[in-house]
Amino acid sequence: MKHITLAHGAGGAVMQGLIKDKMLKYLDHRSDIQIPLSALDDSAVIDDIAFTIDSHTIKPLFFPGGDIGSLSVSGTINDISVMGARPIALSSAFVIEEGFLLKDLEKILGSMQKTSVQADVPIITGDTKVVEHGAIDKMVITTSAIGKRTELLEENIREVKKYRELNERWIRDSNLKEGDKIIVSGTIGDHGISLLSFRGGYGFESEVKSDVAPLNRMIGEAMKVGGIVSMKDPTRGGLSNTLNELSEKSDVGILIKEEKIKVKEAVRSACEMLGMDALEIGNEGKAVIGVVFEKAEEVLDALRKTKEGKDAEIIGVATNKIKGVAMETIVGGKRIVEAPMGDPVPRIC
Amino acid sequence: MKHITLAHGAGGAVMQGLIKDKMLKYLDHRSDIQIPLSALDDSAVIDDIAFTIDSHTIKPLFFPGGDIGSLSVSGTINDISVMGARPIALSSAFVIEEGFLLKDLEKILGSMQKTSVQADVPIITGDTKVVEHGAIDKMVITTSAIGKRTELLEENIREVKKYRELNERWIRDSNLKEGDKIIVSGTIGDHGISLLSFRGGYGFESEVKSDVAPLNRMIGEAMKVGGIVSMKDPTRGGLSNTLNELSEKSDVGILIKEEKIKVKEAVRSACEMLGMDALEIGNEGKAVIGVVFEKAEEVLDALRKTKEGKDAEIIGVATNKIKGVAMETIVGGKRIVEAPMGDPVPRIC
Repeated sequence: MKHITLAHGAGGAVMQGLIKDKMLKYLDHRSDIQIPLSALDDSAVIDDIAFTIDSHTIKPLFFPGGDIGSLSVSGTINDISVMGARPIALSSAFVIEEGFLLKDLEKILGSMQKTSVQADVPIITGDTKVVEHGAIDKMVITTSAIGKRTELLEENIREVKKYRELNERWIRDSNLKEGDKIIVSGTIGDHGISLLSFRGGYGFESEVKSDVAPLNRMIGEAMKVGGIVSMKDPTRGGLSNTLNELSEKSDVGILIKEEKIKVKEAVRSACEMLGMDALEIGNEGKAVIGVVFEKAEEVLDALRKTKEGKDAEIIGVATNKIKGVAMETIVGGKRIVEAPMGDPVPRIC
Repeated sequence: MKHITLAHGAGGAVMQGLIKDKMLKYLDHRSDIQIPLSALDDSAVIDDIAFTIDSHTIKPLFFPGGDIGSLSVSGTINDISVMGARPIALSSAFVIEEGFLLKDLEKILGSMQKTSVQADVPIITGDTKVVEHGAIDKMVITTSAIGKRTELLEENIREVKKYRELNERWIRDSNLKEGDKIIVSGTIGDHGISLLSFRGGYGFESEVKSDVAPLNRMIGEAMKVGGIVSMKDPTRGGLSNTLNELSEKSDVGILIKEEKIKVKEAVRSACEMLGMDALEIGNEGKAVIGVVFEKAEEVLDALRKTKEGKDAEIIGVATNKIKGVAMETIVGGKRIVEAPMGDPVPRIC
């Protein structure tokens, strides 16, 4: 392939290829990083500081349940939080198209403020660039965040070690082992379908609200229980992609039960109509959490007591009996859950 | 004004207005940050971690002396370095237009690698988004960086305090006081003119090379001498804007001498032809350094021994005798140096 295609940015197998073949080849040149780029985890870690960045190119900028402002703040907070770190600060860089309405900018800034206050993570630095009409589709917001180790993380790790070995100081994608339970913190597919439904032209009317939310408080409650080994937010490529990443990095199979995966009726019917798989649709307010099985029920209870985790469910288990990810279907039998080649819904984050 | 204009992103007075009236109103809501967003310094500081972000929207992507890759890595390293901090890690987020040539991407990644290795600051995390043709003008790269306090910074501050009071632990824009000398680390205007000349259509042929470079090593050499109070890299809005920012934040006048400001002949003639002021043209490999006068000559010597600082010069002094920034011209007399309304050359960083 000589050109970049949409699939290169779609969070699936093609994007993994670009990152592994090109990005890592050039950018991953030092071996003394605690969690380096090559780990392809939600955040990197250096000198005990978690660090992450995401550009947001969503279309439309405003959608049911949020906008590019709440999304860019939430997504970055979540990438730090799923490492078990406490997000302490955000930076945000705006690229704005000439002619953008000031009142829309203020609306977006208001959302950022609200989300930042809600999560108690301040935006402490930024950048603003304006480009001529046509040089960008309205706006790109890039947010970066830093996070720190906390006593909560230490305590969580100690709790894991009561039940099994763990040779790691952070909550990493590669920590999953046979027997660990897999929790999803709520319904899936809401965000991607919300954006799609609002774009119009798809012929469905039901308004699905995006789940976009900062998850640091919910994750904090789960970590108070302890026993969490792996965590990820299933954004691009959805639950399918996230489970496959966990399985691959931890070198363990994952078996899930379809009946345990919650999908809102409106999302389910939109997916049926569009021929999409809800498991592959991106989410912006959910966490996939691997927990030692002795603590799974307790973590589930703690999650369900939070606003963001009220629909949490144990959906499966890590097992050496299979390779990759498989699902026991409602109708009976098993099917393989493959990582999607790309996200079926472009520009959702 | 109801719409965003190019001037809102041009680094001058209009952009300062947008940032102060809108960005700070919404985003600057916590009072416990060491160096908050409202300081509008080159980096923020929280928990002794320096933190900065910049989106790069340059046109063209490749120019004499560098490309968007070397620029995005250098610029962010410099924003940390001018706080007196040591940059320890970078993150980079790509937004790429569908159809972008893979070989161009590899060339840019190669530049990022080279600059990162040269500066010894690793890129440890990233993000890649691809948008459909027409949704972005080729590529935006956003880089963020974190930096730490070092013994070198402590020692530099102690050296300042031998000569005068300083109630601050970082090298800040607001630290300048009467009598401090102002050093510029080399020729000005190279970067902006380089991009302009390469864009074509401007009717001049001389190839000016951009000065784009990571300055952390040069700044390290200067800090070994000590006595540095303020530092800034004069990017958008050029030297004029930087001096005005220093003057305003430190509440002290700055008097500079035109004869001490080095401008390459090719830059000077390009500026004359285009009716531009070299003082307002952006730079990407220069630092403006305020030093207690007792250490100024020594810092100058140290700078001149480095590759990036070989043309360094003391260009002026902070003084209470004037308000704002003024310049003694070569032909005689003084003129006021105002902050430009915007950058005369758009999309140079």
